[in-house]
Amino acid sequence: MSEFDIGRSKRAREAFSFDDISVVPSRRTRDGADVNLNWQIDAYSFAHPIVAAPMDSIASPESVIAVSGLGGLAVLDLEGLWTRYEDPSKIYAQIAKADSFEATSILQKAYSQAIKPELVAARVSQLRSAGVVVAGALSPERTLQFHKTIVDAGVDIFVIRGTTVSAEHVSSRGETLNLKEFIYELDVPVIAGGVATYKAALHLMRAGAAGVLVGFGGGATHTTADVLGLRVPMATAVSEVAAARREYLDESGGRYVHVIADGAMGRSGDMVKALACGADAVMVGSPLARATDAPGRGRHWGREACHGDLPRGSVANFEQVGSMAEIINGPSRTADGTMNLVGAIRKSISICGYTDVKEFQRVEIITN
Amino acid sequence: MSEFDIGRSKRAREAFSFDDISVVPSRRTRDGADVNLNWQIDAYSFAHPIVAAPMDSIASPESVIAVSGLGGLAVLDLEGLWTRYEDPSKIYAQIAKADSFEATSILQKAYSQAIKPELVAARVSQLRSAGVVVAGALSPERTLQFHKTIVDAGVDIFVIRGTTVSAEHVSSRGETLNLKEFIYELDVPVIAGGVATYKAALHLMRAGAAGVLVGFGGGATHTTADVLGLRVPMATAVSEVAAARREYLDESGGRYVHVIADGAMGRSGDMVKALACGADAVMVGSPLARATDAPGRGRHWGREACHGDLPRGSVANFEQVGSMAEIINGPSRTADGTMNLVGAIRKSISICGYTDVKEFQRVEIITN
Amino acid sequence: MSEFDIGRSKRAREAFSFDDISVVPSRRTRDGADVNLNWQIDAYSFAHPIVAAPMDSIASPESVIAVSGLGGLAVLDLEGLWTRYEDPSKIYAQIAKADSFEATSILQKAYSQAIKPELVAARVSQLRSAGVVVAGALSPERTLQFHKTIVDAGVDIFVIRGTTVSAEHVSSRGETLNLKEFIYELDVPVIAGGVATYKAALHLMRAGAAGVLVGFGGGATHTTADVLGLRVPMATAVSEVAAARREYLDESGGRYVHVIADGAMGRSGDMVKALACGADAVMVGSPLARATDAPGRGRHWGREACHGDLPRGSVANFEQVGSMAEIINGPSRTADGTMNLVGAIRKSISICGYTDVKEFQRVEIITN
Amino acid sequence: MSEFDIGRSKRAREAFSFDDISVVPSRRTRDGADVNLNWQIDAYSFAHPIVAAPMDSIASPESVIAVSGLGGLAVLDLEGLWTRYEDPSKIYAQIAKADSFEATSILQKAYSQAIKPELVAARVSQLRSAGVVVAGALSPERTLQFHKTIVDAGVDIFVIRGTTVSAEHVSSRGETLNLKEFIYELDVPVIAGGVATYKAALHLMRAGAAGVLVGFGGGATHTTADVLGLRVPMATAVSEVAAARREYLDESGGRYVHVIADGAMGRSGDMVKALACGADAVMVGSPLARATDAPGRGRHWGREACHGDLPRGSVANFEQVGSMAEIINGPSRTADGTMNLVGAIRKSISICGYTDVKEFQRVEIITN
Repeated sequence: MSEFDIGRSKRAREAFSFDDISVVPSRRTRDGADVNLNWQIDAYSFAHPIVAAPMDSIASPESVIAVSGLGGLAVLDLEGLWTRYEDPSKIYAQIAKADSFEATSILQKAYSQAIKPELVAARVSQLRSAGVVVAGALSPERTLQFHKTIVDAGVDIFVIRGTTVSAEHVSSRGETLNLKEFIYELDVPVIAGGVATYKAALHLMRAGAAGVLVGFGGGATHTTADVLGLRVPMATAVSEVAAARREYLDESGGRYVHVIADGAMGRSGDMVKALACGADAVMVGSPLARATDAPGRGRHWGREACHGDLPRGSVANFEQVGSMAEIINGPSRTADGTMNLVGAIRKSISICGYTDVKEFQRVEIITN
Repeated sequence: MSEFDIGRSKRAREAFSFDDISVVPSRRTRDGADVNLNWQIDAYSFAHPIVAAPMDSIASPESVIAVSGLGGLAVLDLEGLWTRYEDPSKIYAQIAKADSFEATSILQKAYSQAIKPELVAARVSQLRSAGVVVAGALSPERTLQFHKTIVDAGVDIFVIRGTTVSAEHVSSRGETLNLKEFIYELDVPVIAGGVATYKAALHLMRAGAAGVLVGFGGGATHTTADVLGLRVPMATAVSEVAAARREYLDESGGRYVHVIADGAMGRSGDMVKALACGADAVMVGSPLARATDAPGRGRHWGREACHGDLPRGSVANFEQVGSMAEIINGPSRTADGTMNLVGAIRKSISICGYTDVKEFQRVEIITN
Repeated sequence: MSEFDIGRSKRAREAFSFDDISVVPSRRTRDGADVNLNWQIDAYSFAHPIVAAPMDSIASPESVIAVSGLGGLAVLDLEGLWTRYEDPSKIYAQIAKADSFEATSILQKAYSQAIKPELVAARVSQLRSAGVVVAGALSPERTLQFHKTIVDAGVDIFVIRGTTVSAEHVSSRGETLNLKEFIYELDVPVIAGGVATYKAALHLMRAGAAGVLVGFGGGATHTTADVLGLRVPMATAVSEVAAARREYLDESGGRYVHVIADGAMGRSGDMVKALACGADAVMVGSPLARATDAPGRGRHWGREACHGDLPRGSVANFEQVGSMAEIINGPSRTADGTMNLVGAIRKSISICGYTDVKEFQRVEIITN
Repeated sequence: MSEFDIGRSKRAREAFSFDDISVVPSRRTRDGADVNLNWQIDAYSFAHPIVAAPMDSIASPESVIAVSGLGGLAVLDLEGLWTRYEDPSKIYAQIAKADSFEATSILQKAYSQAIKPELVAARVSQLRSAGVVVAGALSPERTLQFHKTIVDAGVDIFVIRGTTVSAEHVSSRGETLNLKEFIYELDVPVIAGGVATYKAALHLMRAGAAGVLVGFGGGATHTTADVLGLRVPMATAVSEVAAARREYLDESGGRYVHVIADGAMGRSGDMVKALACGADAVMVGSPLARATDAPGRGRHWGREACHGDLPRGSVANFEQVGSMAEIINGPSRTADGTMNLVGAIRKSISICGYTDVKEFQRVEIITN
């Protein structure tokens, strides 16, 4: 990594966002029908590598089931509105009507309601009965408290997702999550993150994660950079974590941990770039918030936006461009990368002459 | 080429767009009357190196004949509106009235109409009777199907133009175009592209192309970067392909393949930069879409914008600044590089002290 | 420091602003409750490292006392409105109502009124009776004239603040301030600046300053770059001065001079970056101008904006987001880094796994 | 100079504009009263180094006399409105009322009127009777035709100003200006330009120029980059030409040719940067077009904007901020670098601790 002298006492590594790079076609092209987009993690297989993020604006039990039916993995937030309210439809309606000034306060109030363990179990069971791959997410802070409820209720994939998740959390008060022991004792595969550096990712891999979420502060609903000064541009973050995957593959004697880019991919072109930088899959929020059948009704927010005394996200407004089915699998009626996400990924891989995502990770890129 | 570490697992070459560079006058200046702008490809000679792109918004049979009369090469799209409709004037009118939201759907519908082989032949004959150099374009996908019709009808120059054209297209279903055999058997010179890299261009040259179109996703009507994540900034792309021309000139023992920059040149200054980077000619669309006598009536779109399930372009709106004649040969009444394109190229070459485009390719450039 | 050739006769060092960089979390995280934000300079200790700048828009005697009560250091401008007018409330009202066109003239007129020595003494005494740490600021030009009045009135910390303060001011007319002798003879600690380079900071440290203010021309109310062409991007400036602190610590055998970033930190994320670049504390204006209880009533200006014949700042308009207490200590209702500044700094340090500001100065940063 | 690979066949030097750099104060400051801003070229001495450009929008005979009275050099365009019309006041009125769409056509028509030799002589005489330093400008194309008239009428300084002026102009038709012979035979000092490179400047110096104008296409009224693709960012251009001055000083055994930055300096901060990069003086247009007593009445245009078939500039609209006297010598009522230009230059030099422009050319600069 090249470095800059910021001043005589500080150096900084050079980092790149998706906007800084582009993918370059090679001398061969390929028929799109010959491109295989399947993604497999642990025992679960999906038709494409697009994962719906555990965000209340896009993931209700109903929409999680719908998106699963469209071939991808969808994750429900198990400490969001659906485990705080028996029926959160009034809250959704409130948020949909709020102007941007009052939206944060409304979120803060809505998410201050206590999480109900019985609702956690009920939501998991509801997904299980629908026959989809059941994936639920908790923050690192709540994992100790609720994981038994969730595993007992029959989750297939366990997602631990926070602004930053580290293998080593230090606290002088009370019990903290020892991620390594936790994953070891758990029977289900764990996907954990966000991380943004080689070292942090390697530690999560060593702790046993089946997948690592790359990113923080990059998405449409994050203002982490403004509030906390934290940011790692995503092209660099994904490439760093992909390097950790290779290192860990070697040191573990063959364990392949999936790299899942999380956030900062508003358009299909960004997802293509994430794969080109080494991601195996992409977790997206805002592209699905544009669906007419998303629970957020055109509004989009993350869990950071709901923090009681330091909110770090806002409620974004998106034009609704089509159904979840059209957004994910097409056909598209827009030319801006917001519809037919799977078709766009397939087209890019075929134009560059590759056959699948793993091969495509070798594609040439340039800086813009 | 200098390279950057994007992250530990990925490197990227540094690339430059026309906006990143400028041309630098040298210590000598020259009288504009002493500058020779002639461009010759195969047996055909033109008064200037500006080529009208095969786009329905600027190229009807009538406007192709008109632009040819202004000294340049003009290409008709042989799988556009003019070979799908006996009289496409109603379609043009529809597009001219559409708002930007519905425009894509209107294009998708209009271009879903089947291509009529008899119209393909008729359009070529129409141009032939007008006595101009007859140039027609097909996409790589349609070339096998229609090339005989076209050659039989008497085309002079055959253009194969797609987002990406490669010398090697891989498909597991059916017959695909073997470009090398195809060109070898054809009696007319072939211009093919877009390409954006040294290697891809070299393969097209080896396949026998008389000219190579450089670019994709750069133009006013392209959103390739948003949708597909693909882009190669044009200054770099042209310079790479110009290097391939030199390499191929050597390995072929003297065959000079023309480098034609295609797209991302909205103003005459951009065309000057393309030539300075090594282009022999420039294929333009949007500058001519500003003509009062362009068939698009101020609207401009590319064939990508008409794709049925993954449109990658939009309908742009341009102020109409003058006639085709004024835009190409002047005089200009605007100061923004949209009129008197030929005059501007002549002026730049003369200010830098050179006598023709070939010499001007050596001019010094700087980064902005 | 890397350097560029601007041209054959001039080289320039590469410099970075806060917008150019971000902080990168490491592999460890820490409980926010375990982070210690105390800041101590000379004999005075504060709950956090945020210093309110000596600017009339945010610092009246009343608000200085209030901000002190919120745990930080607040400085009163002793050559501003409060020492020119017995009661400046009419002036404040005038500025609050002025449109941007006439605001500069109103400031020029208001600040042309003579400073009254008896008011200088009275303001200091007023702060002293409130029991807060008394800090007052003068420009280098007025220091000789008023410092005795101020010290006699019982100031605890003396601030000398100008666009540029140097240890060596050369003049052919009359008496000038010899900073080294002045500080030596003074009984109270002196904070001086702005400076922006290693060398200038080292000279101020050798002159005896207890703290050095880093910056000029970066703040919301400065237009120094437009008017004077002077600017040093803040990330570089802070890092340079932090290097001078280390050099001086060594050459003085252990005297630790505080580095206080001053200006260009409109959001909490910027303050985090200043600390990451080596600052011990941050002096802020515009973030506090957003307080409903700031004397400027949403207007914000610096002393440069009041210059009689070369004003170098304007009157900015800020939305009032909450009380001083909420802005500094939270809770926040906004997601843009304008509220709960202390909470944001604490959160960043904890996410990066550090325990205090001194440790946090080692955190990794990247360029955006 | 560092260079980039644009692509395999083209390299480009890295260049910097004034916006890319800033001036850095050193450890010393100086009393502004001790700064000497005098500028002397040939036998003529001026109170400050600001030169009013030969542009009809700012330079009528009356305003040239007025600006001269404010201490600087002012140049009249001798092939502009004042030598085409006995009384151009109607033309000025027309331009002042034109909307931006029709302005170019109005200029083209107005400047198509023939130049009257008797008016050329009369304007020079008018300036001479006013007792000011008489400076008149011609383009290289008109120099042969009118220089005798002008010299006979008693010009003190002869300015040859075009987009690009080279020492070697090549033409196959008729007589061209041999600059070296021309200057040698002329009795008055010649200032010539624009140039933007070391080599071109060195040739002008060897041809005998007393001063060299640096720049083209950078100013508010230029659109050279859009139309012609030509541009050299000014910080680099000035530094290159300053290096040529040093080279020529050596090879000529002591002849000091003045480097005059011309254009792209809209604010006083830009003028400071030009001097910091090595300029001896600055020729400005747009800053003076903001004067209430400029002949353009808030409109501003260059001679390129009037070209008959390839106009390369537009008519800009400026807010009128104050009188010529206030703009040049202050006092200022604005904080954006548009008033008290001389005061701002003086202030910057004093803050950086220097005594005059020649010393200030050594000041440290950074990239932003």
